[in-house]
Amino acid sequence: MGLVHAWLMKQAQTSLNVSCRGRGMTNITSQIQSWLRGTGVQTGVMTVYVQHTSCSLIIQENADPDVLTDLETFMGKLVQDGHPDFLHVDEGIDDMSAHIRTTLTQVSLTIPVVNGQAALGIWQAVYVYEHRFASMQRRVLLHVVGE
Amino acid sequence: MGLVHAWLMKQAQTSLNVSCRGRGMTNITSQIQSWLRGTGVQTGVMTVYVQHTSCSLIIQENADPDVLTDLETFMGKLVQDGHPDFLHVDEGIDDMSAHIRTTLTQVSLTIPVVNGQAALGIWQAVYVYEHRFASMQRRVLLHVVGE
Amino acid sequence: MGLVHAWLMKQAQTSLNVSCRGRGMTNITSQIQSWLRGTGVQTGVMTVYVQHTSCSLIIQENADPDVLTDLETFMGKLVQDGHPDFLHVDEGIDDMSAHIRTTLTQVSLTIPVVNGQAALGIWQAVYVYEHRFASMQRRVLLHVVGE
Repeated sequence: MGLVHAWLMKQAQTSLNVSCRGRGMTNITSQIQSWLRGTGVQTGVMTVYVQHTSCSLIIQENADPDVLTDLETFMGKLVQDGHPDFLHVDEGIDDMSAHIRTTLTQVSLTIPVVNGQAALGIWQAVYVYEHRFASMQRRVLLHVVGE
Repeated sequence: MGLVHAWLMKQAQTSLNVSCRGRGMTNITSQIQSWLRGTGVQTGVMTVYVQHTSCSLIIQENADPDVLTDLETFMGKLVQDGHPDFLHVDEGIDDMSAHIRTTLTQVSLTIPVVNGQAALGIWQAVYVYEHRFASMQRRVLLHVVGE
Repeated sequence: MGLVHAWLMKQAQTSLNVSCRGRGMTNITSQIQSWLRGTGVQTGVMTVYVQHTSCSLIIQENADPDVLTDLETFMGKLVQDGHPDFLHVDEGIDDMSAHIRTTLTQVSLTIPVVNGQAALGIWQAVYVYEHRFASMQRRVLLHVVGE
């Protein structure tokens, strides 16, 4: 995988609307890979970015769903909903905990593009991790630069 | 938002010196957006990077300051200053806890650039999160590639 | 550090195989810097990406090894191996905890390139943070775009 010169370089970006049915993870890997194929970029780097402060992005196991269940169990104990310390309570007991969970995970991910695909490992998937209880529409931006 | 060809692509980078008045968050969103406007890049991707191991970067709520207060309260309980386990204590009780807080948050953020702006959501701001007690000068690098 | 026009821009990518001897951190900074020098990119941005869900990447102190020891002590208490809540237990008591530790840290890092080097702060190093007990071979992808 050597150097690639500029005159073939290009970029593309788009946004996805992701429907999240309350707290939990939504796998967006196939949407990302499908969009990438459409751009024709074979070699480069892509960014996945979520425009919110109470949901986040994670890269985690794509096989055993127990991993996601256990991760949520852990997060639920680590960040107590409606903790008596919280001042920011007007939007419900899940709102401040959602901000904290977002801070402890990610809102942006950067993934190399190899052979026209986001170069995820064989066990990796990209998830929007919704931290609010209610169903939400979340906006995810995708960007790629490469050739 | 389609493909953009290379012959218009360019990059720019700079560094910001951010004065942090002890533990807490400093909003650097307007500095980032202002610098981006100066580069003339309309479409692309930017990186925000902090060159330290005891402060970090977060993207969080820009409206209710209680969110930041509650987040700091949470972090203060999660990572106890001067925990008796710590071996790295020569620089004070806030030093090792600052390294841990940094690890649990971010030192680099990548944000798509749309219409000449870092494409933050309407509630998002970029903060330097200082974890040391003392006032510190922190160095943040900005990079953009696009056209 | 001004604008650089496209006709000199190029990209490069590679992968590193990193041998991790059980739980703990492996410093990959010199491998990253050495590869970057070979690409000839002077100004740009690089991505470091790990293709796994039970090890991660962190940027932390390169001087006092007690920082790494204390960080591991903290993580070990925060995420209990073999917690009775865990459903995902077939691969051992360190497997689910490894997934959680990975989620609380990073799988991708983006670092500006200045003067032909990843622009780490003077105290920063890049580590693969192995969370499994066993020795593992881990795959790290590097990408740079710049000129």
